[in-house]
Amino acid sequence: MRIAVDAMGGDNGSKPIIEAIKEFKKVYPQDEVIVFGKKEELEEISSICRIVDAPDIVPMEAGALEVIRMKNSSMCKAINTMKEEGFDAIVSCGSTGGFLSAATIILKMIPGVKRAALVTAFPTKIKGKKVVVLDVGANNENSPEELVQFAYMGRAYQQALFASENPQTYLLSNGAESHKGSPLVKQTYELLNNQNFEGFKGNMEARDVLNGDADILVADGFSGNILLKGMEGIAKAMSTMIKDNFKKNLWTKLGYLHVRSGFKNMSETMDYKSVGGAMLLGINGVVIKAHGNSDAYSFKNAMKVAHQMVENNVVNKIKESFKNE
Amino acid sequence: MRIAVDAMGGDNGSKPIIEAIKEFKKVYPQDEVIVFGKKEELEEISSICRIVDAPDIVPMEAGALEVIRMKNSSMCKAINTMKEEGFDAIVSCGSTGGFLSAATIILKMIPGVKRAALVTAFPTKIKGKKVVVLDVGANNENSPEELVQFAYMGRAYQQALFASENPQTYLLSNGAESHKGSPLVKQTYELLNNQNFEGFKGNMEARDVLNGDADILVADGFSGNILLKGMEGIAKAMSTMIKDNFKKNLWTKLGYLHVRSGFKNMSETMDYKSVGGAMLLGINGVVIKAHGNSDAYSFKNAMKVAHQMVENNVVNKIKESFKNE
Repeated sequence: MRIAVDAMGGDNGSKPIIEAIKEFKKVYPQDEVIVFGKKEELEEISSICRIVDAPDIVPMEAGALEVIRMKNSSMCKAINTMKEEGFDAIVSCGSTGGFLSAATIILKMIPGVKRAALVTAFPTKIKGKKVVVLDVGANNENSPEELVQFAYMGRAYQQALFASENPQTYLLSNGAESHKGSPLVKQTYELLNNQNFEGFKGNMEARDVLNGDADILVADGFSGNILLKGMEGIAKAMSTMIKDNFKKNLWTKLGYLHVRSGFKNMSETMDYKSVGGAMLLGINGVVIKAHGNSDAYSFKNAMKVAHQMVENNVVNKIKESFKNE
Repeated sequence: MRIAVDAMGGDNGSKPIIEAIKEFKKVYPQDEVIVFGKKEELEEISSICRIVDAPDIVPMEAGALEVIRMKNSSMCKAINTMKEEGFDAIVSCGSTGGFLSAATIILKMIPGVKRAALVTAFPTKIKGKKVVVLDVGANNENSPEELVQFAYMGRAYQQALFASENPQTYLLSNGAESHKGSPLVKQTYELLNNQNFEGFKGNMEARDVLNGDADILVADGFSGNILLKGMEGIAKAMSTMIKDNFKKNLWTKLGYLHVRSGFKNMSETMDYKSVGGAMLLGINGVVIKAHGNSDAYSFKNAMKVAHQMVENNVVNKIKESFKNE
């Protein structure tokens, strides 16, 4: 398995990426990691990886054309080399828009797929169970037909990752009843219902996403992004408040000693960093976007997602389900 | 001040409503409360309120036409009597869709207003500061022109409630930059920008809503609903996990004793019940929708919102800002 890593372009530079690669290689020594970035910064991992010098850094706000024009950037060189040499996966924490669009343009979409979708897995109340949500931000706008395709890609992804027998699929809506929703949701509901999409259970409100009923949640890219970031925002605000409560005085600090293991569990369950990265589904190749502010732990998890996706053959499974489109 | 209360139709029957009215009357003894519902259930508050017998209960799933047809239901009779006798406000925890649409049809929209919007205030990280969000669910779909009107109504509401000198208004989007967003967001951004809307600060991602920068956040009803319910869902999941952590053993229970006051503060900050109810803006009259599963505390807060809105003359302020439309 060969995984390309864009080592530059994240908020925290190449340092956490280097640490992440070291940790990753401990767990998966057989994977070949090809790292793109400033050669002099990457020397310490040259014994465990192939290093490709690509000194330019794509700015956070760059779009696809800018990325493609920056031939010597770590991001552009990584995607191009992946295409030329046929690597299995690529991981980057650089500019979301630039990375996703450039990867789509260079690696191309799977035949039959109308739009790529960014997918991630949220923790749920049920221990160990995750819910796969897509699209969480690759698109600003989607059609009902695109949402139906997201349902198929989400199912392939969910089954590859969790080997579920019969995953339950829901549509994100503003009400659980079948007649509720935006015009887009209503039309998608009808399409999925008419074609008897396996395991389609109807609409789900945003407040029920983490209750463990859904295995797959389908949304347009704009709404999915609101859901993802809204949850991130409140989880972070609550965590800050919890920490502040414990810092108050000696008694609260002592109190913390008694509950810290429990809180560590909760933080891990709710920490988006443990999920690592979001995968861009519908592309020829495993394309993983890690958070822009990834630390080593988070980036390592993004690399683990890449490994799992390759191992479970997700791209071919999606090709299979779209071969008649 | 005269406030109509629909005492039936909530998940928990009339009991919490009765308790809420008793508590409310302690704080606002001068307000006249007119209660609609099953007379025999409401006897214990007949000394402090006017009771109007309206024995029928609107089912949770009822639409507007069903509500209007059920002349003897507490909800329909309350809205009709409000119209006839000119009450200042109405509060209900019955069917959201039915209540909002029936109130809109019977009480009518303020001249110039294209669509009513449901508004609520979220707590932020900054102590005591709230952010006003609209629409959180009155509409399934909105036009750019409607969103611009929401910005004006939100400003009137925010200033009436918090007397802010120069409230900052943002648009909910999938990126903070000016070029980000759905087609709807992009068009609304341009309209607000072109007319130099006072205090318009551009786009805001869902993860930043609680950071205290925004006083007013404008969204279409579908996206606003996803944001509201997504936040509710994760706040509830985290609270449950916190409680479970403290229940583990004697040590964690002792630990809880040291931090419980801090947690109480946090729970209150994050508890949507402390906000009470959402107001339907753009209607002739103060229309407050309380949560379907309101307890006495939550319903009392919804009544307090009604009181504040009447006291601050919100409806007339909106009329004023739309008189040239």
